[in-house]
Amino acid sequence: MRGGLALGLLALAACQSPSMTSAIPPPPPGNTPTIPEVIAASKPDEWRRIDPENTLYMDFPNGRVIIELAPHFAPNHVANIRALSREGFWTNGAVTRVQDNFVTQWAQAAEPARPPKVGVEKLTAEFTLPRSVVTKFDVLPDPDTFASEVGFVDGFSAARDKDSVWLTHCYGMVGAGRDADENSGGGTELYVIIGQSPRALDRQLTVVGRVVQGMEIMSAFPRGTGDAGFYKTPAEHQHYADIKLAADVPAAQRTNLETLRTDSASFQTLVNSRRWRKDDFYKHPVGRIGLCNITVPVREAK
Amino acid sequence: MRGGLALGLLALAACQSPSMTSAIPPPPPGNTPTIPEVIAASKPDEWRRIDPENTLYMDFPNGRVIIELAPHFAPNHVANIRALSREGFWTNGAVTRVQDNFVTQWAQAAEPARPPKVGVEKLTAEFTLPRSVVTKFDVLPDPDTFASEVGFVDGFSAARDKDSVWLTHCYGMVGAGRDADENSGGGTELYVIIGQSPRALDRQLTVVGRVVQGMEIMSAFPRGTGDAGFYKTPAEHQHYADIKLAADVPAAQRTNLETLRTDSASFQTLVNSRRWRKDDFYKHPVGRIGLCNITVPVREAK
Repeated sequence: MRGGLALGLLALAACQSPSMTSAIPPPPPGNTPTIPEVIAASKPDEWRRIDPENTLYMDFPNGRVIIELAPHFAPNHVANIRALSREGFWTNGAVTRVQDNFVTQWAQAAEPARPPKVGVEKLTAEFTLPRSVVTKFDVLPDPDTFASEVGFVDGFSAARDKDSVWLTHCYGMVGAGRDADENSGGGTELYVIIGQSPRALDRQLTVVGRVVQGMEIMSAFPRGTGDAGFYKTPAEHQHYADIKLAADVPAAQRTNLETLRTDSASFQTLVNSRRWRKDDFYKHPVGRIGLCNITVPVREAK
Repeated sequence: MRGGLALGLLALAACQSPSMTSAIPPPPPGNTPTIPEVIAASKPDEWRRIDPENTLYMDFPNGRVIIELAPHFAPNHVANIRALSREGFWTNGAVTRVQDNFVTQWAQAAEPARPPKVGVEKLTAEFTLPRSVVTKFDVLPDPDTFASEVGFVDGFSAARDKDSVWLTHCYGMVGAGRDADENSGGGTELYVIIGQSPRALDRQLTVVGRVVQGMEIMSAFPRGTGDAGFYKTPAEHQHYADIKLAADVPAAQRTNLETLRTDSASFQTLVNSRRWRKDDFYKHPVGRIGLCNITVPVREAK
């Protein structure tokens, strides 16, 4: 079996540029470090404080869900989401759709929805960025089914080809719902990926951020029994109090978070410890990891 | 962007053997058929009746979960699971662990567990089969991060290398929990994958089957707050009445299911319609699909 695995690795290595495969050398022999061990050994400057201007709080009865927005990839959508939050567009809103192994989606609870006052309903799609404007891309060495290169841009899972870079629909990533028209989304309805990552959505919807706390809340709502997992009745709605920008919340009520920088040595150690995971339970290192199998560490800032 | 995507496809095509990439030609121009359309156009002989001897019912207050066992891959575990069911090992059992984006696990509710009477607690691991004994493997044409070839064996997601074939930890696949010793599992504790497929588990645990009905129940339980997602208190346990083999249930109480054969023309059409999905919403066909992004259709048998 090991021989066969090695062979598979060689076959797949042929798909990778030498610089990519050699970017991350194998770890030393013996057990690989655990994620808590990697975090404990990390340096303070390997963490990035999450900006309150790019942080959304969604407070449910059973806890706070926190989203980090991605203004670099979706500047117009993020600006609109800030405006919608500040005008109270989502006050007393609800999760209205939970489609198993796909998405949890939320918006206003009222039907028909109140139109935005300051924000807007529709924006031009922000699916990709020109590769030339994304100067830092922390590439992963292993093959991906959907893209020729995958990795992270400042903590967000991403992919790129020779022309463009885009955020990927990995577990926990947040996007803007739209109608058939690609320019019909704007952030008034948002969704988060809750199952096997549906990467076929990449470059077909605007990804606006990632959940950095509370995925265990977003993923455990009862699944909707209507078309596409929409709840059939308002009684099924899962209500949240509001969606507030952290910057608009009194400092004492904020949850201050920091995320491990994906360009740090500790993150590289973490990725490699997952690729070659070996411990008392995992006895056969695979030597590979999928983009969407990596959760970038986030912790409360000291 | 399209040019970039085409380039990516060429680069990845180089990873595939010609026979694999040519196995599934692109669909005709225009919108691809929906899954219901593919199913509606399928022929009766393209469906395989799921054998009651390989079918488990797990009845929760909110519905029935149905598991198809994989005796070809894990004969000793499946025989033991049948014995455990027949001796009432799981009567009044419960889900005791739900780790977000990983697994839902169930067993007896009582601690300490009653030892099996007819079945056994531990079996030799059944991680892989020699490639020579698996004569039919319905291969997928697109690259996979973890294995050199992936596809389906009689409806079960699988991977293979030159030496062996194994079932993969895709969303909805069921495995036998174990301790650190690879031969310490036997089926007394079972788990199902509920998030981004943790393929690093492949060939490290014995996969015994797949959920064919009720994943929306298994994936929506509250996440446990103890170590590894175990519920901290018995009060949190999610109880099921029993785990019964369909063959042991009166015919009138059975749910008779059939699954689309993965060696059928209609399944190939379905896979290709997902690879090249094009409709009013999906405007940019990707031309690729991941193994764990495919759900094999299952329906009530007529």
